Amino acid sequence: MSATALPSTDDPLLVISAHAGDFVWRAGGALALAAERGQRAKVLCLSFGERGESAKAWRDGLDLHEIKALRRAEATSAAAVLGAEIEFLDAGDYPLLESPELVDRIVRVFREVSPAVVLTHTLVDPYNGDHPAAARMALQARVLAQAVGYDAPGEPLGAPPVFFFEPHQPEQCDFKPDVLLDITSVFDRKRKAMECLAAQQHMWDYYTDLAKRRGVQLKRNAGPNLGLPHTTMGEAYVRLYPQTTSVLA
Amino acid sequence: MSATALPSTDDPLLVISAHAGDFVWRAGGALALAAERGQRAKVLCLSFGERGESAKAWRDGLDLHEIKALRRAEATSAAAVLGAEIEFLDAGDYPLLESPELVDRIVRVFREVSPAVVLTHTLVDPYNGDHPAAARMALQARVLAQAVGYDAPGEPLGAPPVFFFEPHQPEQCDFKPDVLLDITSVFDRKRKAMECLAAQQHMWDYYTDLAKRRGVQLKRNAGPNLGLPHTTMGEAYVRLYPQTTSVLA
Amino acid sequence: MSATALPSTDDPLLVISAHAGDFVWRAGGALALAAERGQRAKVLCLSFGERGESAKAWRDGLDLHEIKALRRAEATSAAAVLGAEIEFLDAGDYPLLESPELVDRIVRVFREVSPAVVLTHTLVDPYNGDHPAAARMALQARVLAQAVGYDAPGEPLGAPPVFFFEPHQPEQCDFKPDVLLDITSVFDRKRKAMECLAAQQHMWDYYTDLAKRRGVQLKRNAGPNLGLPHTTMGEAYVRLYPQTTSVLA
Amino acid sequence: MSATALPSTDDPLLVISAHAGDFVWRAGGALALAAERGQRAKVLCLSFGERGESAKAWRDGLDLHEIKALRRAEATSAAAVLGAEIEFLDAGDYPLLESPELVDRIVRVFREVSPAVVLTHTLVDPYNGDHPAAARMALQARVLAQAVGYDAPGEPLGAPPVFFFEPHQPEQCDFKPDVLLDITSVFDRKRKAMECLAAQQHMWDYYTDLAKRRGVQLKRNAGPNLGLPHTTMGEAYVRLYPQTTSVLA
Amino acid sequence: MSATALPSTDDPLLVISAHAGDFVWRAGGALALAAERGQRAKVLCLSFGERGESAKAWRDGLDLHEIKALRRAEATSAAAVLGAEIEFLDAGDYPLLESPELVDRIVRVFREVSPAVVLTHTLVDPYNGDHPAAARMALQARVLAQAVGYDAPGEPLGAPPVFFFEPHQPEQCDFKPDVLLDITSVFDRKRKAMECLAAQQHMWDYYTDLAKRRGVQLKRNAGPNLGLPHTTMGEAYVRLYPQTTSVLA
Amino acid sequence: MSATALPSTDDPLLVISAHAGDFVWRAGGALALAAERGQRAKVLCLSFGERGESAKAWRDGLDLHEIKALRRAEATSAAAVLGAEIEFLDAGDYPLLESPELVDRIVRVFREVSPAVVLTHTLVDPYNGDHPAAARMALQARVLAQAVGYDAPGEPLGAPPVFFFEPHQPEQCDFKPDVLLDITSVFDRKRKAMECLAAQQHMWDYYTDLAKRRGVQLKRNAGPNLGLPHTTMGEAYVRLYPQTTSVLA
Repeated sequence: MSATALPSTDDPLLVISAHAGDFVWRAGGALALAAERGQRAKVLCLSFGERGESAKAWRDGLDLHEIKALRRAEATSAAAVLGAEIEFLDAGDYPLLESPELVDRIVRVFREVSPAVVLTHTLVDPYNGDHPAAARMALQARVLAQAVGYDAPGEPLGAPPVFFFEPHQPEQCDFKPDVLLDITSVFDRKRKAMECLAAQQHMWDYYTDLAKRRGVQLKRNAGPNLGLPHTTMGEAYVRLYPQTTSVLA
Repeated sequence: MSATALPSTDDPLLVISAHAGDFVWRAGGALALAAERGQRAKVLCLSFGERGESAKAWRDGLDLHEIKALRRAEATSAAAVLGAEIEFLDAGDYPLLESPELVDRIVRVFREVSPAVVLTHTLVDPYNGDHPAAARMALQARVLAQAVGYDAPGEPLGAPPVFFFEPHQPEQCDFKPDVLLDITSVFDRKRKAMECLAAQQHMWDYYTDLAKRRGVQLKRNAGPNLGLPHTTMGEAYVRLYPQTTSVLA
Repeated sequence: MSATALPSTDDPLLVISAHAGDFVWRAGGALALAAERGQRAKVLCLSFGERGESAKAWRDGLDLHEIKALRRAEATSAAAVLGAEIEFLDAGDYPLLESPELVDRIVRVFREVSPAVVLTHTLVDPYNGDHPAAARMALQARVLAQAVGYDAPGEPLGAPPVFFFEPHQPEQCDFKPDVLLDITSVFDRKRKAMECLAAQQHMWDYYTDLAKRRGVQLKRNAGPNLGLPHTTMGEAYVRLYPQTTSVLA
Repeated sequence: MSATALPSTDDPLLVISAHAGDFVWRAGGALALAAERGQRAKVLCLSFGERGESAKAWRDGLDLHEIKALRRAEATSAAAVLGAEIEFLDAGDYPLLESPELVDRIVRVFREVSPAVVLTHTLVDPYNGDHPAAARMALQARVLAQAVGYDAPGEPLGAPPVFFFEPHQPEQCDFKPDVLLDITSVFDRKRKAMECLAAQQHMWDYYTDLAKRRGVQLKRNAGPNLGLPHTTMGEAYVRLYPQTTSVLA
Repeated sequence: MSATALPSTDDPLLVISAHAGDFVWRAGGALALAAERGQRAKVLCLSFGERGESAKAWRDGLDLHEIKALRRAEATSAAAVLGAEIEFLDAGDYPLLESPELVDRIVRVFREVSPAVVLTHTLVDPYNGDHPAAARMALQARVLAQAVGYDAPGEPLGAPPVFFFEPHQPEQCDFKPDVLLDITSVFDRKRKAMECLAAQQHMWDYYTDLAKRRGVQLKRNAGPNLGLPHTTMGEAYVRLYPQTTSVLA
Repeated sequence: MSATALPSTDDPLLVISAHAGDFVWRAGGALALAAERGQRAKVLCLSFGERGESAKAWRDGLDLHEIKALRRAEATSAAAVLGAEIEFLDAGDYPLLESPELVDRIVRVFREVSPAVVLTHTLVDPYNGDHPAAARMALQARVLAQAVGYDAPGEPLGAPPVFFFEPHQPEQCDFKPDVLLDITSVFDRKRKAMECLAAQQHMWDYYTDLAKRRGVQLKRNAGPNLGLPHTTMGEAYVRLYPQTTSVLA
């Protein structure tokens, strides 16, 4: 079998997100692309972002229970727009505490989904400690799920590649893009998903501008001769592991 | 057009090599794979490696002229085994001197070949200054060839991705593989090409062992479930520019 | 409002220190300068350094209780000399254990002080694990204190810049100074504060020599034409976040 | 004299730019801010960017002489809008060749202008070899100009800080912002200067979006409490040398 | 006393290993060399590798108890072949959980053995989280054991140098060898120790090939004139702390 | 033969220095130690530092010829105090221009001396471009001298280890010490050699303080138990190539 076969519908995409909104801004395009190709696309939200990413709701006087419900509803809508499943572990945020129990819950998701590709946060983010905590747990769970001796239901996981999605201030997180993903064909859907997050309106334009910016870079790196449209939109990713392939391109 | 179409026969592969033997040890698999797929595969040797990589010939008492002829003959045979064209610029080695004139000659090769993929040396190599010199010139020539205002025949170059091939002591050259290339199907041909370099017999096994080692890593990173054979052979590469794609895999 | 207004008396400086003595050697000049300008200057000591930084006291046969009292007294005197307040959390050292409870206590200090500038240890120190542990907790607490949804008294914190102060073996801690602070005018006071730490006499000269060395570098980087005195004394810092300003200088 | 006095009108700002347009996109805000404060602001263009940055003019059929004249006119207009002087060395581009003679010409500019602050390109740019070449020469000339024994008119230079301005694809150039400069008050002027570069219309919006993006980050790093306006615009810089100061802020 | 005296029999070597097999593949040569010189050589295995490194045993249907016994037996045999003592802490693997209690147990081993040299895993390993966890605990314990105030039996530890041994995919673990150790004279013994690990037969050749590869590099770096035999075998290490010496060589 | 034999009198030490004074401040201890052991110790000064390192002489009104003579005399005295030979290439400084001819002259020195150890400047120094230029030429010459095919008298060079000596502002030059050399026994001689450089009196104390500082670190890294005297003096070095050895210590 070739090392470079493209993903098929048997090849799920799993996004592990610290808070309810992260997957939309940072990986919405990748999710929508996978869903369009018929891949199973699943989002695992470790928390609702109820404390750290819900400033407006707190200022509006909602209580913790109401905020969690609000964030769950928004994220569920956004996932639906993208064509993705979503699951919440409600592990709490700010801080998102690392624990063997939470890692074990993530292992079980890995074993159940058996993803062919995994997306998560960067390991460095001086603006938000929950993001690296989520990433560390996701990576640890992926390795544990590979071990036949790890006591959890399901088959041992293979070795799905891991991509870190783009943090809010990429340079400060040592994020140097390895991959520029062409999301032009699904950008409208990503925009609609962003608009499900009603309280963060200033982010809609920020991440639309970012998609344009990554699109310009994508065209520049793909080569002007490739004929990519002027309106190319992109998302940036960093690989954790080396790419395996049988074609250099 | 998609950002991820695989290379076709219209998509030449260009390898820029400081000395006559480098392309065999470091990129022989990539060349043979490209040739098998029907891509044009071309090697540009900036020098014959007549001073720095021909110790045995000097000890055997050959003169400069004879050594160049010997190295040319060996490299030509090796290229033929791999299915690649080869051109020599005879720019001298140890040291390979950087000059605007030599860069201009490389620009002209870029314009003539219009490669879709470029392979060259790493920018760091504390064991051999010719290697980084070749890489610097290759990269400079690639950028110059892109400019419509650069005065050389042919159309401006697109933006072919650049891969650095593996140096002799990779860690000391800050070489952290980004891509593991499956060369199992063409390894026999690479071995035959290596054997064309008669004076460097100790290298045949060293680079066969390396291909095994990169093959083991390729299997580990591709995932045990992928069913790659036990005898997988690999070559390692580092990307200079971000990959552009419409599928994460 | 400008991004570059200098700190006023409304702008407290907060130093978070793993042990009782660290703030003196590493940030004594910054504290004295702030106090002289009329800023509130506060030191938060997470522990007394009773196990890891009190070798002489242990050799002299004091018990844990006595050593804590001794270190508290010394650090309190040193802070007074510098014009700073001091608070001890008595969280234990060697090891200083990270916990959500301890982080929460630090959050509460952030909310109470509302610092305009924060100083703490580097994130890397292979000679002393308590230092990075203190830094990680300080940074986590700073981010938590910013969230309106974090359940602690007081207003959400702004975004005070963070400076890492100089570790004992800077190069081994990947400490590359971003800022050289001119402490000439308060160096006498820093020296007196150092002398409050009676058991560590060998450090008085080591850190006086260091201040000279950083002073020489300060003059070199500020330019010989600037007319800084021959006796310039300095402290070195590394920024965690980018400087915000409306003037490049 | 203090290490932190803000620049006065005696404190010129010097921007050293490889091509005629670079200073507008990358340092237009800094130039306009300096000019508004009454500082002398000077741009030194090593070339016109006649080959590498004038694709449209070549496609329109202009010859080399015409393109240089066009680029000179555009850059002169842009500098005037920003309130800056401009000088062209016409050293050729693509490639911009490094030579002792060209470095000597730059030394003489340093000696004549005696800048208090220097801005130039980054030392890494895999998309454009002229940018690092300009930076290397600028840095070498600055050091040479400091030596009393260097044979050129004028007084030895002090030690002006050097800031690298932002390249087109910052992460790929290892550009991690150290300084976010608030250019809100002069952004209109920067936009007008950009519009002087008629052939590069797609860049106007790209760099307006970038200014917004850096503005958002500036607000985030300065702290929400600082009351910066929603429309804050920014430019990003990296320092080469440590900042010297007598206040941490 | 000189800073460069070679180790004597009073100078124990301590290897801290996450799992039962690691010390064989990665430090078997160093252990055998020390034992041959008459140094005490001790291996501390934090776990048996019962879950993460025993895939074949699980597939063969053994239970946890049986697997631990098997791994203990194999590792004990391998240590004996190398001439080393071995102790197991049975702390569990996959994940190896960090705790103050486990660190304290390691401190006590440090105090008891008083090693002159310490070997452990790298701090980065994206393929196996137990390895960095073991390294972090080993390093923390070493620092704690140095403090006279740390409450454990025995004398405070000196400052034994720490060497990281080679991980399975060195480049991906940022492993850049600082030291190439000549293990030619004891390689047969290392091979026999590897063969004690019956279930991991594919590793015997992988690590034999690696020893050859490191041997070739050792000869290259030592200089061809040194007359090292063609069959030189090596192990690679990275230093954590600077070497102290009175001779540069 | 062992990979770890200590240097004998057949093992020359070669220091390659950009200017006449560098070898004293940065490698004086290593030179004196080698000379005391009976090794041949040789300094190669590429220039006299007549423009860049002789500010006082220029201010005193000496002309170029007089300054070169002065610097030659001082450096010759200092070398004599250290027990070292010295040779000047008078290649000019500020800038020290790189050329194939100068590299060839250095190759011939390598072939003549056949050093067992080589010391030179760091490859990064933003304060002095001549230092990296000297280092680049020294490293290139070392590699060329190894090639049997390089046309220069003498036998091909082996593979002598290269150590970078300490620059003036080490952190800004990315200088992270790998080796701390104990120079206590020869420090008086180093001090006397420094005093031969009459015009740079401020440096005598700066580098005496630095030797104390590196001595404190040496004791800390060697371990308090080793009994090094309180007055230990040190020099710091960075290795370019991995150490080859048969003992870990």
